Amino acid sequence: MPTNGALTWLIPDAYLAAPADDDTVMKNHEAICILNVTPDDAHLKLDFYFEDRDPVEDVEITVPAKRCPHLRLDKPEQIGGYEIPFDVPYGVRIRSDVPIVVQYSRMYASDSKIDSVITTIAYPVDN
Amino acid sequence: MPTNGALTWLIPDAYLAAPADDDTVMKNHEAICILNVTPDDAHLKLDFYFEDRDPVEDVEITVPAKRCPHLRLDKPEQIGGYEIPFDVPYGVRIRSDVPIVVQYSRMYASDSKIDSVITTIAYPVDN
Amino acid sequence: MPTNGALTWLIPDAYLAAPADDDTVMKNHEAICILNVTPDDAHLKLDFYFEDRDPVEDVEITVPAKRCPHLRLDKPEQIGGYEIPFDVPYGVRIRSDVPIVVQYSRMYASDSKIDSVITTIAYPVDN
Amino acid sequence: MPTNGALTWLIPDAYLAAPADDDTVMKNHEAICILNVTPDDAHLKLDFYFEDRDPVEDVEITVPAKRCPHLRLDKPEQIGGYEIPFDVPYGVRIRSDVPIVVQYSRMYASDSKIDSVITTIAYPVDN
Repeated sequence: MPTNGALTWLIPDAYLAAPADDDTVMKNHEAICILNVTPDDAHLKLDFYFEDRDPVEDVEITVPAKRCPHLRLDKPEQIGGYEIPFDVPYGVRIRSDVPIVVQYSRMYASDSKIDSVITTIAYPVDN
Repeated sequence: MPTNGALTWLIPDAYLAAPADDDTVMKNHEAICILNVTPDDAHLKLDFYFEDRDPVEDVEITVPAKRCPHLRLDKPEQIGGYEIPFDVPYGVRIRSDVPIVVQYSRMYASDSKIDSVITTIAYPVDN
Repeated sequence: MPTNGALTWLIPDAYLAAPADDDTVMKNHEAICILNVTPDDAHLKLDFYFEDRDPVEDVEITVPAKRCPHLRLDKPEQIGGYEIPFDVPYGVRIRSDVPIVVQYSRMYASDSKIDSVITTIAYPVDN
Repeated sequence: MPTNGALTWLIPDAYLAAPADDDTVMKNHEAICILNVTPDDAHLKLDFYFEDRDPVEDVEITVPAKRCPHLRLDKPEQIGGYEIPFDVPYGVRIRSDVPIVVQYSRMYASDSKIDSVITTIAYPVDN
């Protein structure tokens, strides 16, 4: 029987580069993509860790059953109102009450063009 | 004894960017690459999950024994006739009846040039 | 006690793009990077799987103890003499007699410039 | 109960490309990103493995409790004083006394622009 994922996921390399120009669409951004294949809504808590300051913990969001949102980290309204600081290295922990799978991606863009995109499945624990 | 892979794989970050121009070869595309090292054909079911609509489930394809197809998600004829919508965030679940390994890749291209490529091994469950 | 890796690794998305121009250094290439932290030489067998033809199996190479070669797949002398065909989707299985860790990377380059690079840890089985 | 990560991590594909020009900010670099969500400081030992020379072992650094440093491998002061040679393929082992999660990233840049960025979660053992 499939486990459908893990309850806790860790991302050590997160970084929201400041916008390179005024382009409002093709801009630097990051996304945390959550795949919830279960029949239950997932209630998530996000914790943000930094190099030299205390963590910001327990930011709450909900991912509906059988949905796959790509949460834009540069849009506070998509991550419980938390505003990620620009150009600050950080990491993220995602805790869920139902099994999910998490993938992290980042786009660098300038002059209305893509410079580079990166992606990786996050690291699961307790599964 | 090697297990040869897992039966179910999950990809939270899929996205088929609309073509940037008329180039028919060097264009935005995604691929789900399936490695089946077993002596048996793999019968797969693909399920597609979205941010705000119900999933599309049970798209069927076959991967022959000892073969490694790179399924182009922008070519419906390679994924059971299903047409992925452009510019819509989604996720994919792949279920197989024999162990396989799955890798997901995406290319961004414009002006007949590569802008960026990303790749990751998908996330296995039930293995 | 650390396990130092796994004995068998799988890479579903391999692809050696034909050279874009005459640049002999900054060119399209792939590498399979093998980290052998053990005190024993690793004797490897590489198997290559394709979309529509039989696999090429049992290509032999050795990775010395406590070494980390980045094997260039476009250089037959680094992979037991086997010549990868250009522009053909394939996958790779690496089998070892001591635990290793495998990472796969690919560079796209043209006009003596990098267009994009991708990387992922390969998928381990039997560990 | 979450395990918070693993004690040993391996990265087979590390490579510090020589600077392409005199830009001191937008330059080729690598980072090893360490997420320590535990209430204890992590004492790390880094080992560097090469293609054709003996490894450099036991480079010591500390990652504070509940912090997430992105260690720049081109800055010896961030990795215990060790100076990575340019343009030499290598691999890294990270050993910790508390569970951590490790992600490896590399940026290629020239003419003050990003050419490409890559990332992957490293490979954990003994967890």
